[in-house]
Amino acid sequence: MKKILQDFKAGKIEFEEVLEKLKTLPYEDLKFAKVDTHRELRKGFPETIFCQGKTIPQILKVVKAMSKRNHNILATKANKKIFNALKKVYKDAEFNELAKTIVIKKKNLISKKGKILVITAGTSDIPVAEEAIVTAELMGNKVEKAYDVGIAGIHRLFDIKDKIFNSNVIIVIAGMEGALASIVAGLTSKPVIAVPTSVGYGACFKGIAPLLTMMNSCAEGVVVVNIDNGFGAGYFANLINR
Amino acid sequence: MKKILQDFKAGKIEFEEVLEKLKTLPYEDLKFAKVDTHRELRKGFPETIFCQGKTIPQILKVVKAMSKRNHNILATKANKKIFNALKKVYKDAEFNELAKTIVIKKKNLISKKGKILVITAGTSDIPVAEEAIVTAELMGNKVEKAYDVGIAGIHRLFDIKDKIFNSNVIIVIAGMEGALASIVAGLTSKPVIAVPTSVGYGACFKGIAPLLTMMNSCAEGVVVVNIDNGFGAGYFANLINR
Amino acid sequence: MKKILQDFKAGKIEFEEVLEKLKTLPYEDLKFAKVDTHRELRKGFPETIFCQGKTIPQILKVVKAMSKRNHNILATKANKKIFNALKKVYKDAEFNELAKTIVIKKKNLISKKGKILVITAGTSDIPVAEEAIVTAELMGNKVEKAYDVGIAGIHRLFDIKDKIFNSNVIIVIAGMEGALASIVAGLTSKPVIAVPTSVGYGACFKGIAPLLTMMNSCAEGVVVVNIDNGFGAGYFANLINR
Amino acid sequence: MKKILQDFKAGKIEFEEVLEKLKTLPYEDLKFAKVDTHRELRKGFPETIFCQGKTIPQILKVVKAMSKRNHNILATKANKKIFNALKKVYKDAEFNELAKTIVIKKKNLISKKGKILVITAGTSDIPVAEEAIVTAELMGNKVEKAYDVGIAGIHRLFDIKDKIFNSNVIIVIAGMEGALASIVAGLTSKPVIAVPTSVGYGACFKGIAPLLTMMNSCAEGVVVVNIDNGFGAGYFANLINR
Amino acid sequence: MKKILQDFKAGKIEFEEVLEKLKTLPYEDLKFAKVDTHRELRKGFPETIFCQGKTIPQILKVVKAMSKRNHNILATKANKKIFNALKKVYKDAEFNELAKTIVIKKKNLISKKGKILVITAGTSDIPVAEEAIVTAELMGNKVEKAYDVGIAGIHRLFDIKDKIFNSNVIIVIAGMEGALASIVAGLTSKPVIAVPTSVGYGACFKGIAPLLTMMNSCAEGVVVVNIDNGFGAGYFANLINR
Amino acid sequence: MKKILQDFKAGKIEFEEVLEKLKTLPYEDLKFAKVDTHRELRKGFPETIFCQGKTIPQILKVVKAMSKRNHNILATKANKKIFNALKKVYKDAEFNELAKTIVIKKKNLISKKGKILVITAGTSDIPVAEEAIVTAELMGNKVEKAYDVGIAGIHRLFDIKDKIFNSNVIIVIAGMEGALASIVAGLTSKPVIAVPTSVGYGACFKGIAPLLTMMNSCAEGVVVVNIDNGFGAGYFANLINR
Amino acid sequence: MKKILQDFKAGKIEFEEVLEKLKTLPYEDLKFAKVDTHRELRKGFPETIFCQGKTIPQILKVVKAMSKRNHNILATKANKKIFNALKKVYKDAEFNELAKTIVIKKKNLISKKGKILVITAGTSDIPVAEEAIVTAELMGNKVEKAYDVGIAGIHRLFDIKDKIFNSNVIIVIAGMEGALASIVAGLTSKPVIAVPTSVGYGACFKGIAPLLTMMNSCAEGVVVVNIDNGFGAGYFANLINR
Amino acid sequence: MKKILQDFKAGKIEFEEVLEKLKTLPYEDLKFAKVDTHRELRKGFPETIFCQGKTIPQILKVVKAMSKRNHNILATKANKKIFNALKKVYKDAEFNELAKTIVIKKKNLISKKGKILVITAGTSDIPVAEEAIVTAELMGNKVEKAYDVGIAGIHRLFDIKDKIFNSNVIIVIAGMEGALASIVAGLTSKPVIAVPTSVGYGACFKGIAPLLTMMNSCAEGVVVVNIDNGFGAGYFANLINR
Repeated sequence: MKKILQDFKAGKIEFEEVLEKLKTLPYEDLKFAKVDTHRELRKGFPETIFCQGKTIPQILKVVKAMSKRNHNILATKANKKIFNALKKVYKDAEFNELAKTIVIKKKNLISKKGKILVITAGTSDIPVAEEAIVTAELMGNKVEKAYDVGIAGIHRLFDIKDKIFNSNVIIVIAGMEGALASIVAGLTSKPVIAVPTSVGYGACFKGIAPLLTMMNSCAEGVVVVNIDNGFGAGYFANLINR
Repeated sequence: MKKILQDFKAGKIEFEEVLEKLKTLPYEDLKFAKVDTHRELRKGFPETIFCQGKTIPQILKVVKAMSKRNHNILATKANKKIFNALKKVYKDAEFNELAKTIVIKKKNLISKKGKILVITAGTSDIPVAEEAIVTAELMGNKVEKAYDVGIAGIHRLFDIKDKIFNSNVIIVIAGMEGALASIVAGLTSKPVIAVPTSVGYGACFKGIAPLLTMMNSCAEGVVVVNIDNGFGAGYFANLINR
Repeated sequence: MKKILQDFKAGKIEFEEVLEKLKTLPYEDLKFAKVDTHRELRKGFPETIFCQGKTIPQILKVVKAMSKRNHNILATKANKKIFNALKKVYKDAEFNELAKTIVIKKKNLISKKGKILVITAGTSDIPVAEEAIVTAELMGNKVEKAYDVGIAGIHRLFDIKDKIFNSNVIIVIAGMEGALASIVAGLTSKPVIAVPTSVGYGACFKGIAPLLTMMNSCAEGVVVVNIDNGFGAGYFANLINR
Repeated sequence: MKKILQDFKAGKIEFEEVLEKLKTLPYEDLKFAKVDTHRELRKGFPETIFCQGKTIPQILKVVKAMSKRNHNILATKANKKIFNALKKVYKDAEFNELAKTIVIKKKNLISKKGKILVITAGTSDIPVAEEAIVTAELMGNKVEKAYDVGIAGIHRLFDIKDKIFNSNVIIVIAGMEGALASIVAGLTSKPVIAVPTSVGYGACFKGIAPLLTMMNSCAEGVVVVNIDNGFGAGYFANLINR
Repeated sequence: MKKILQDFKAGKIEFEEVLEKLKTLPYEDLKFAKVDTHRELRKGFPETIFCQGKTIPQILKVVKAMSKRNHNILATKANKKIFNALKKVYKDAEFNELAKTIVIKKKNLISKKGKILVITAGTSDIPVAEEAIVTAELMGNKVEKAYDVGIAGIHRLFDIKDKIFNSNVIIVIAGMEGALASIVAGLTSKPVIAVPTSVGYGACFKGIAPLLTMMNSCAEGVVVVNIDNGFGAGYFANLINR
Repeated sequence: MKKILQDFKAGKIEFEEVLEKLKTLPYEDLKFAKVDTHRELRKGFPETIFCQGKTIPQILKVVKAMSKRNHNILATKANKKIFNALKKVYKDAEFNELAKTIVIKKKNLISKKGKILVITAGTSDIPVAEEAIVTAELMGNKVEKAYDVGIAGIHRLFDIKDKIFNSNVIIVIAGMEGALASIVAGLTSKPVIAVPTSVGYGACFKGIAPLLTMMNSCAEGVVVVNIDNGFGAGYFANLINR
Repeated sequence: MKKILQDFKAGKIEFEEVLEKLKTLPYEDLKFAKVDTHRELRKGFPETIFCQGKTIPQILKVVKAMSKRNHNILATKANKKIFNALKKVYKDAEFNELAKTIVIKKKNLISKKGKILVITAGTSDIPVAEEAIVTAELMGNKVEKAYDVGIAGIHRLFDIKDKIFNSNVIIVIAGMEGALASIVAGLTSKPVIAVPTSVGYGACFKGIAPLLTMMNSCAEGVVVVNIDNGFGAGYFANLINR
Repeated sequence: MKKILQDFKAGKIEFEEVLEKLKTLPYEDLKFAKVDTHRELRKGFPETIFCQGKTIPQILKVVKAMSKRNHNILATKANKKIFNALKKVYKDAEFNELAKTIVIKKKNLISKKGKILVITAGTSDIPVAEEAIVTAELMGNKVEKAYDVGIAGIHRLFDIKDKIFNSNVIIVIAGMEGALASIVAGLTSKPVIAVPTSVGYGACFKGIAPLLTMMNSCAEGVVVVNIDNGFGAGYFANLINR
């Protein structure tokens, strides 16, 4: 910007030219802001593609555009077919079948010190958990997991007491009734990110039941992301992990 | 019935008369069945009036009809005004302001051996709990209570471990997220009757959130009654208490 | 526990060792409590696996872990494929195609005296009923059934009057409008466990209509479990059957 | 119409005039149709005003316009205040406080032969029932009533068996679970008009529960009108009463 | 009944035998009532099977039981496969592919004088309309139809003015917004039975939108049956057709 | 902008100063854009305050800030109390009690040629209509109205045929079933802006029923604004009126 | 009409014949009105067929009837199969696979001066956008598009600032949260037509979330059409484009 | 714990006594854990009372119990009446009328370095914002605020760009459409806690609309708390502020 103005003062460029250049400034400005904040967070942000509803050619085009910037690339809600198409072009693409994610890693990130703990209530919640883990790890976080903790037998929670104490942020993933988030938050004062899942049948209404449970949590320190949104939870966990 | 037929055989009554008398038999029959079952349950059933939507004269009329049968009388969702009107006629009427119940006790019931435990998650759930207690006690049950147990601090549950072990049936009353029912059911294999309450704000939608939570309980041994239906819980608890 | 402390007093074990052993005590303690209560109920509890959302390897692993404990094993919401995989390892596994249940029976349970009656409103409600029956029988209950009782012709109810009188607990399974539960509860004072089903079309909204009907039952003595939750009804019926 | 054309042919009126006159014909035509059908139904139709959301001056103006046509006038969802204002002008106005209706009767209607039976499940459903009765009677129908029939005690239905057999059309009014309509329809093949009411609490959601129950009725011969719409039920009953 | 008593009086049968025979009387009694009313309606009632959720063997069994009574048989929500199975046993079975109905006609019914008019808003509503027509015709009604009348072009309604005037009962079938029922009811004072359909997309929510529209109809004389319930509409239309 | 740069080139201001001034440019820029578009639309835009949820001092402060710009001011969802407070300061403030609007007119707007027609289904929809009219008129539009057109008697629509043909834009306001919008759109190809209102009872659910009806309109040329949002309809009508 | 009457006056036709001819006049009349308005809008209206729920023979029949009128024909929610069937008869039929539209163009329309801008939030919203574009172009509008503008990076909106300023009407298509419509409307005072899409997962509930967001837009100048209703948006945009 | 065991080894206490003491250990243990974590977070946690649904005597009792622990006390959803009652006993109690909070401050907390920024979309969202601020400040955070930022004029957001960059955590509070949270999250990569409010009318359904918008945010880095839950947002912001 300084340069533009100095060039103008020096008579190297005309007023119209300055105007033209300034027109795009709000955009550049905003973009810069983003990048700046990124840096502050140690550049941990992968570029992300939400695959659902996109054709394979569209996805390829987006990945191509992204890969110029030398960032790590993360594709969520992907499938084998998309992966095969990407794999041909990007040899280092990796597919996590459970998480339905594809990762193209361009560089290693400096790891954060704090750990993120990902807890699921049941076995069926694992795919959402895996999406959260892939996301958080790609952003440079150490992630621990504890699956199938349930609440039917509260004692299973005690087995993972140490994991809870040794983590900085906790992601709780639960379908059906979704009460696990409140209980974990009642046991610790670590921030808890709750992810309702669409697992279950009958009156759980594809995730509405656990969503409402989590929104109404009487335990303090619980926030909620969208149903099945493992990515969102992993992303936010990274933002607040130290 | 035998008498009718014998009279007919003996020629004391005509065929038409028999027919007339038999016409009402299905009714009597059914009524008898009810009474019979009652006896089997030690006649613990109070006559109940749901006051909401009824005028005071209507309530008085119903009570009058009921009091002939010498049963204990229970009026739910009542208020001070209704009580004052009843008190003038029935000197022994008793009002429980929290529970919004009026009781007119005609006889002492033989107490059952087992205890019913009524647990509330919060202080605001107490009125519903009191309705359950009044109902169950009037039917001859010993009732214990544990209020404000919450789940934010799961340790509070451990303090009432003994109460849980010493009861036969457990009623869990909770608004907001309603997770307490699942947790209690996870700790014991006593039957748990869950009552969602309309307490809370925002996304609890006047009791829908805890209702869904309770319906989706992953802990076995939980059944649910209507939102704020303390009476229904107390009534069912009596049916299954031994 | 006593042993740990005596060993400590006797100097056989160090303080650190005691601590280590005590750390898991809350867990063991709770587990014991569970088992104890089980015993009280004549050890009728099968170990249960909810198959939906689990892969076959996951299910096999769980069954393997469970079968060590010599309990009866029950898998719900199963299918032929899962059964075939299990059958290879567990020769005595039995599949109920209607109920979608797999049972591996390890021992015969002492039968309870009381009967559980399972009534369905329609033919389409039978799968849910079968799930309830398999569950209850595996836990040592005698179960009677009365299918397709409906309410369109109330007289069909009178045909099963005897079954109603001879049972201890009644499970009513109904889709569409779900009114059958109230009517049965109006005829008897046996405890009624109502199961809404997702059978129907149009404004029954996959079970919401019968769920609401059952929650609002004006007949006393009705409690509700989740839509299509035959297992939950059978389980609770066992808890309260004498 | 014939006259217009003959006048035109006879040269009495010009083309433009014919056109002008014909322009309003579709309207007149339609209006006539209505009147014609009315006649066919023995002119039983009162003019009706839905008071809710209207100011008293607005209501007065409408009544004034209506009263020219010498029809009976019916105002629904009215209150004492509206009645007092009307009473000053129309001395023969009558207020039914329960039904919240005002009637100004201009002429006696020839009574129909068939009877309409109005049944309510509970005492709190009576206001809606009264609205239906006032409407049907003003249209020349004989109406019988049976209040507080409930379904908790199915035997109460048998007491009104004769009323059911002696009626042509049955209106069933019920809140809470709303199952009464199905049961009545199961006992008879008379047409049943079901009216859900907003009576109840908790999961009846101001009439949604009985509305859904009635929509899903498995008994044939049930149709439904809006929640609390006693007028609509009375009106339709008149249409189909013979 | 008379015979039983006379046999008893004559000493041919014992008291216990009478009792046994009378036990089933309430049932017979009720059934008789039904039949009686049927007769009054010229025996127009077919026996009906709702196929959805039933297996083919179950359906065959039901048909077999029904066909003894020499009534016409109607199966709704059927498909080609069910038809083929039935066709093998019942040569005169007829399948209406649009309506998804199977009819086995045992006798011709005396036709009623009045006509039923079935109107659909769109082409996609035709299957529901056909179900209504098959039902009504099998019960002895003359049925006229007017498809794709819509409301986008209100003039299309005028084309069927004559059909409207010449019918006794009108069934209006509409998805999407469902406004057609109100408009038809505004043009005539014939009773209108409205059937919402699940046709449409987006905010019509599988029939909720037209259901609500029809429930809230400001035109008098409209009643509603369940979404896609052509059978229910045809059945009720028969009940009120003269 | 040009001036800033020229001053900079001329050395009158420093680089830092330019930067400071440019920082706010995106804002000014955007604002200018807004004003420019306004001009294009003949500066018809009043400044608007949504009163609900604001205290009187807050409203006064906003009006004070606005009145500097010499625009016409419109306050919606206002009441008498707010008006009295404003009247003291702004003598020319005018209150429309039905519309719940306050207007402070600073200048006359050049009237547009086209007319906007506001139609209501019922009398109770008038307040919403008045809000739309006040809004549109303040922005320089000629507005015609036709109240209580209903759809129960479709002929009433024909009476306003001329008004429909002589208008450029049509606003249709309807509660209950909300079908009027579709019917009007079926009669004309003028753009129709539909406003659902919360008028009604029972299954209209405070405006959800007409909202859904309007969203699903099968007549082309209908768009929808929020429930009771007369202001939004008037505002949009102005945007598209010519 | 004049001719009919003159023929009558001249004795060429009888009164009955006049009557017969006049009977269809209301219809012709209304139709004329439609056509007239069309002309005013430069005859831009294609004949439209909504394919969903129609069989191919039905569609062919409708197209055949339409093609007599020499209008452009538009079929929406079509598929390849339908296209193939049409293509055999109408060689100039064109299929837009993304938009799921088939167009049979009979004549070129005089283009309007103003442009319509179609903006989508994401890539997955493109099919709905294409439907809007096909519709608007067929009606003689110039359409510009800007896809995948999102709101996650608000700066992307600034890139299309010029497109916004150079258009007359803006269609904003967005799923998930649907906030884009409000933001665009906040930047310009062009009329904004918002289309919610069913794209997304979890708590967006097939388009309910963006629908509600758009209905509640705090930015003035936004109206909403049905979920996924690209056609409706394109149609309305044409109505208000100049 | 060590002491208990040593005393036991030393023979000072009996086995039974050890058992008794250990029985409460799980509880103490858990409590200790909580306190420990607190310390880690600089003991910033106030004791909190949710006043809604509690009587004044109940609140007083809770405050009394809490005040022993010398923590700061926070009462939310309070009112003037409650405050007056508390003020008599606790002279230093302070009431924030907007926030509906009462604070009793026992000690000053060491302030954190990072700032929390609280942004509201409208003026009506301020009470919820104030609740968040009171909560966060009491826990030792510096809080900045920016009210009435809206999204109708996106430029208003640019005015607070500096505040956004200088904060660590951002709380966005919005009713109606709730889009502000996504837009803020799109401009920065600071963690955003979104609070939907029940402000608005019509289709915002007491906060459901903004809740869904926020759950579906396409901008990464957004989490959601319950409708109107300012306290929860302030609490969570404190947990993640550094």
